[in-house]
Amino acid sequence: MEKVVVGIIGAGRIGQLHAKNLLLSDHCRLKAIADVSTDHLKDIDYLQAVPVITENTDDIFNDPEINAVFICTSTDTHIDFITKAAKNNKHIFCEKPISFDIEKTKETFKIIQEAGVKFQVGFNRRFDTHFKKCHDMVRNGEVGTPQIIKITSRDPEAPPEEYVKRSGGLFIDMSIHDFDMIRYLSGQDVKDITVKASSLIDDRFSRNDDVDTAIITITFTDGSLGVIDNSRQAVYGYDQRIEVFGNKGMVQVENEKPTNVKLSTNASVTEDKPKYFFLERYAEGYVSEINDFAQSILENKPVTAKFEDGLQAELIAKAAKKSWLENRTVELKELY
Amino acid sequence: MEKVVVGIIGAGRIGQLHAKNLLLSDHCRLKAIADVSTDHLKDIDYLQAVPVITENTDDIFNDPEINAVFICTSTDTHIDFITKAAKNNKHIFCEKPISFDIEKTKETFKIIQEAGVKFQVGFNRRFDTHFKKCHDMVRNGEVGTPQIIKITSRDPEAPPEEYVKRSGGLFIDMSIHDFDMIRYLSGQDVKDITVKASSLIDDRFSRNDDVDTAIITITFTDGSLGVIDNSRQAVYGYDQRIEVFGNKGMVQVENEKPTNVKLSTNASVTEDKPKYFFLERYAEGYVSEINDFAQSILENKPVTAKFEDGLQAELIAKAAKKSWLENRTVELKELY
Amino acid sequence: MEKVVVGIIGAGRIGQLHAKNLLLSDHCRLKAIADVSTDHLKDIDYLQAVPVITENTDDIFNDPEINAVFICTSTDTHIDFITKAAKNNKHIFCEKPISFDIEKTKETFKIIQEAGVKFQVGFNRRFDTHFKKCHDMVRNGEVGTPQIIKITSRDPEAPPEEYVKRSGGLFIDMSIHDFDMIRYLSGQDVKDITVKASSLIDDRFSRNDDVDTAIITITFTDGSLGVIDNSRQAVYGYDQRIEVFGNKGMVQVENEKPTNVKLSTNASVTEDKPKYFFLERYAEGYVSEINDFAQSILENKPVTAKFEDGLQAELIAKAAKKSWLENRTVELKELY
Amino acid sequence: MEKVVVGIIGAGRIGQLHAKNLLLSDHCRLKAIADVSTDHLKDIDYLQAVPVITENTDDIFNDPEINAVFICTSTDTHIDFITKAAKNNKHIFCEKPISFDIEKTKETFKIIQEAGVKFQVGFNRRFDTHFKKCHDMVRNGEVGTPQIIKITSRDPEAPPEEYVKRSGGLFIDMSIHDFDMIRYLSGQDVKDITVKASSLIDDRFSRNDDVDTAIITITFTDGSLGVIDNSRQAVYGYDQRIEVFGNKGMVQVENEKPTNVKLSTNASVTEDKPKYFFLERYAEGYVSEINDFAQSILENKPVTAKFEDGLQAELIAKAAKKSWLENRTVELKELY
Repeated sequence: MEKVVVGIIGAGRIGQLHAKNLLLSDHCRLKAIADVSTDHLKDIDYLQAVPVITENTDDIFNDPEINAVFICTSTDTHIDFITKAAKNNKHIFCEKPISFDIEKTKETFKIIQEAGVKFQVGFNRRFDTHFKKCHDMVRNGEVGTPQIIKITSRDPEAPPEEYVKRSGGLFIDMSIHDFDMIRYLSGQDVKDITVKASSLIDDRFSRNDDVDTAIITITFTDGSLGVIDNSRQAVYGYDQRIEVFGNKGMVQVENEKPTNVKLSTNASVTEDKPKYFFLERYAEGYVSEINDFAQSILENKPVTAKFEDGLQAELIAKAAKKSWLENRTVELKELY
Repeated sequence: MEKVVVGIIGAGRIGQLHAKNLLLSDHCRLKAIADVSTDHLKDIDYLQAVPVITENTDDIFNDPEINAVFICTSTDTHIDFITKAAKNNKHIFCEKPISFDIEKTKETFKIIQEAGVKFQVGFNRRFDTHFKKCHDMVRNGEVGTPQIIKITSRDPEAPPEEYVKRSGGLFIDMSIHDFDMIRYLSGQDVKDITVKASSLIDDRFSRNDDVDTAIITITFTDGSLGVIDNSRQAVYGYDQRIEVFGNKGMVQVENEKPTNVKLSTNASVTEDKPKYFFLERYAEGYVSEINDFAQSILENKPVTAKFEDGLQAELIAKAAKKSWLENRTVELKELY
Repeated sequence: MEKVVVGIIGAGRIGQLHAKNLLLSDHCRLKAIADVSTDHLKDIDYLQAVPVITENTDDIFNDPEINAVFICTSTDTHIDFITKAAKNNKHIFCEKPISFDIEKTKETFKIIQEAGVKFQVGFNRRFDTHFKKCHDMVRNGEVGTPQIIKITSRDPEAPPEEYVKRSGGLFIDMSIHDFDMIRYLSGQDVKDITVKASSLIDDRFSRNDDVDTAIITITFTDGSLGVIDNSRQAVYGYDQRIEVFGNKGMVQVENEKPTNVKLSTNASVTEDKPKYFFLERYAEGYVSEINDFAQSILENKPVTAKFEDGLQAELIAKAAKKSWLENRTVELKELY
Repeated sequence: MEKVVVGIIGAGRIGQLHAKNLLLSDHCRLKAIADVSTDHLKDIDYLQAVPVITENTDDIFNDPEINAVFICTSTDTHIDFITKAAKNNKHIFCEKPISFDIEKTKETFKIIQEAGVKFQVGFNRRFDTHFKKCHDMVRNGEVGTPQIIKITSRDPEAPPEEYVKRSGGLFIDMSIHDFDMIRYLSGQDVKDITVKASSLIDDRFSRNDDVDTAIITITFTDGSLGVIDNSRQAVYGYDQRIEVFGNKGMVQVENEKPTNVKLSTNASVTEDKPKYFFLERYAEGYVSEINDFAQSILENKPVTAKFEDGLQAELIAKAAKKSWLENRTVELKELY
């Protein structure tokens, strides 16, 4: 069976996760991993099966056998690597966000289009079994025309201040996943966005001109509405729920729990908390994501999470920040 | 056992409901019902136990034995009847909203305060077992400090256009219950409100300068956030859910279903839809509501849904409408 | 509207419950209550509306206006009162079991048949909304032909030893409800019964030649199977669940909880325990039960829980005890 | 890291499943697969990573590097291969049942004990996350002393008649998993067993002196009770539920569903059916099973599913069949 030959750039947490999944994939062969330092990879057992581990990214870009590059480095380096990969005619999988600078993102889009390579952005939640089924039901008309789309998206614990500083803020760092999801579910373009947000958990966010809690309302071009509620800290675990309400019904996705075990005692009836965080919650989705990408290459069909999707999510994030700063509804077209 | 002796003014749907519950109450004795026409009451079996059925409201206001009046007429008549009842030194239970005119509502408040009678506004949902338990858990600190309060409130079918015309609009007619509930749950004052709304079901709302679908975001004075989503038509039934998220946890109230019966077949696993509408969903709450009012009279303690609560809900509704019309966040203090 | 005029014999817990429901019923008028002593009834407010409260049961049997008698006394007195009521041509509602002696029950059946009066046995669970819906779904063929019927029936706390002594034992006192329910759900006759039982809670049962925990397997005449598990003590509350499995699917009834409130914290996700005991769980069923009885009189149609149903449940209870004592499967026909 | 070097004998469905999981395991290295015919393995991509694929089982038994053998052949060949493996000093993982002949199983046990090798029987359900958590909660005393243990175990569709013929019958083929699970959960020995069973699905079972539906009651040595209900055909999917009821509470394991998606429409509220069959339901358990076995070898600690467990389950299956044939309760000690 033909396989996509992959090189990974960036071997942090998410790069290693993709490495493991690529090694197990029927559709990919992981040939190389590059990072500025590779010392930390020596003790990782399963990585020993990777033929090339290098500190020189050109070992990947110049390898004619490698036909797809996974870009898993920090956001500020994305555009350089995307450009290099495109010029070397390699298909690209890039983690979100594509960049912190929308103008540069737009320019990069042209490069991709000219090179004619596949480009998939790392919106892993589109590949989650639960959300995908929800999406498919909506597309199949099982709730009729969507009228209200609700996303609850809360992390189990706030990141350290060091992370907050370089995160780009709640909207580009965390809500961006929800912006993509709400577009994916709606099938409509975003007309305007309105943010109300606060810093309620502790000072680490306000000290860095950031917020930790937000209600984000979106109007789609057909007048239907969306609302996202975000928190950096849900003490009971990663809270990832979706609800699409339409003129013919409603589809809901509840949280996943580690087990279906229930205990009834004299005191109470208790169940498991939701799965802890994204690595547990989306473990299967990360696997589907790379196989879907590989199949779009092998069968030459469109990717599921396109460059435009990454660009749109960034635009919405930018509008969200503007809405928060200026305390008003921001139209997406203001940003074009 | 001492009982509150009650006269009802207005014998439409809600008046009849209170009549039935008053007849069964251990704390009340229903002595009289007045309506502009009483013909429709002759065939209602259980009303034959009511000593006085009259078309003259003075039969109630002038009866010295009657010590509490239930005002269940149309909103435009409320203030007149409240004033009359207060002047005759009768305790008052009045359906919501108190009036469509906030200035008049404020004036009436003074009359009530001077008369020194009890006044309860018909926010029946405060007496719902589920919501009351949720409220009590929040007050007991089980979720810590509330950060996000979410209310889903959707009717099972849109009212006829005739009703829409005289309803005062979505915010004063329907959302007002949610405005009261969100204040009740939060324990905080509302700082500002932001509405995004649409007319998505059909034209009967837009034709009357009204909307049928809304996302309403509230900032409380402590920076915590609330969000209400409303629809005039949820085809699967009356959707009444609540979620209070705080720094120590989350409490949720799910919909009530007629039965706990579940059917598993080759095709699917199916359960009951939610209870159809407010008469089914809040049947018990309507009973608790009148007993709570009676006990506040008999034991001379504060009522649970006070005049100020009615006034605040009206203010929020007015701000909501302003926010929608002007497409901006409205501060409550703008309305004082 | 024509009403059934009722006299109650026996004003203990269950008699008082029926009294309250009869007073609120649109179909019945409660005229009299008789008990060997009536002192304890003087302080019960709502009973003051009953015209006749007497210590002479003949005040009921001889009252020509009374056309239905509720027999709510201890089991050993049932047959005498049934006989008297039948001879006075009064319809009869009798609590279960009809008697502890099957031969006498059979003889009484003839008296009822000759008198031509309606007779309903107090199998209140047939009137529970949840179980009734389950039953109706099974009858409508939604699970196809039943193959396995499972009933979980556990009390929240063990009765005092004094009660155990005069209860007649687990099978006639507690399981009898489940025997009736399993017949009601199956629509088949019982072919044989097999009991495995133990005394696990404490000594109060074994001291009285009784058990507190049982697994009871039933074979129906068509070969389908039933299984009941009973315990006298479920510390988390009254556990009343049903499952009917057939060749086309399965219908399940879960426990009812006081509220649908769920709390998620760092420690766990907790929900309400089931409703505490039968008065809470079956409150609505007790109301439906008397109205159903009244309607069977007013409209002259068959009752829902017939004398034969009471007799069959007693026969099964007797077979259950025999199975336990002789440690073997007992065929129902052995008892005829 | 040290790894267990494995050879698999038998490359049917279950052998291939283990092969895949072994290839992905951090604790094992799959060196060889033997089957009477190996043609069907050539097209299986992932098996190409296995160094030795052979039709001669001696290639495994004589390979000094291989220290563990997985026996995945038909039941009638198990004892020969176990004996050979033990004599070659290899640890053994063997699918259930060990054999159809208890006397031979007992003799084989002695051989294992003399050889001093690890022996694990393929009771994969012990390694299911849900059931394991349930087991651990029971062992930790969260429900107190178990009084009633209930297992529902129903296959989604009946096997073909060819399979029925050589299956050994319901009790040894299907219920054996439940017999092991009920022992695992109880921690008690089985005192006696009582079976009521029928052939209700179609004739393919009765034609082969087999049944398709059963209620199996177990008395443990401490008087506590267990009950298993089995069906060969649950049209809504694989039904695998557990309930342990004790004097301090109850722990329940519900079925796993593919997704947590719920659809509410005007017609009904629907959810996913349970996962289809054991490969989906126990996918994770099969992975844990082999890693647990590997760790018991690498760390020289007892296995979780021991030879005695396999033997006990077979004894119970034999007693179950005897109970069904003789229509009576069978004591386990009758079989020793």
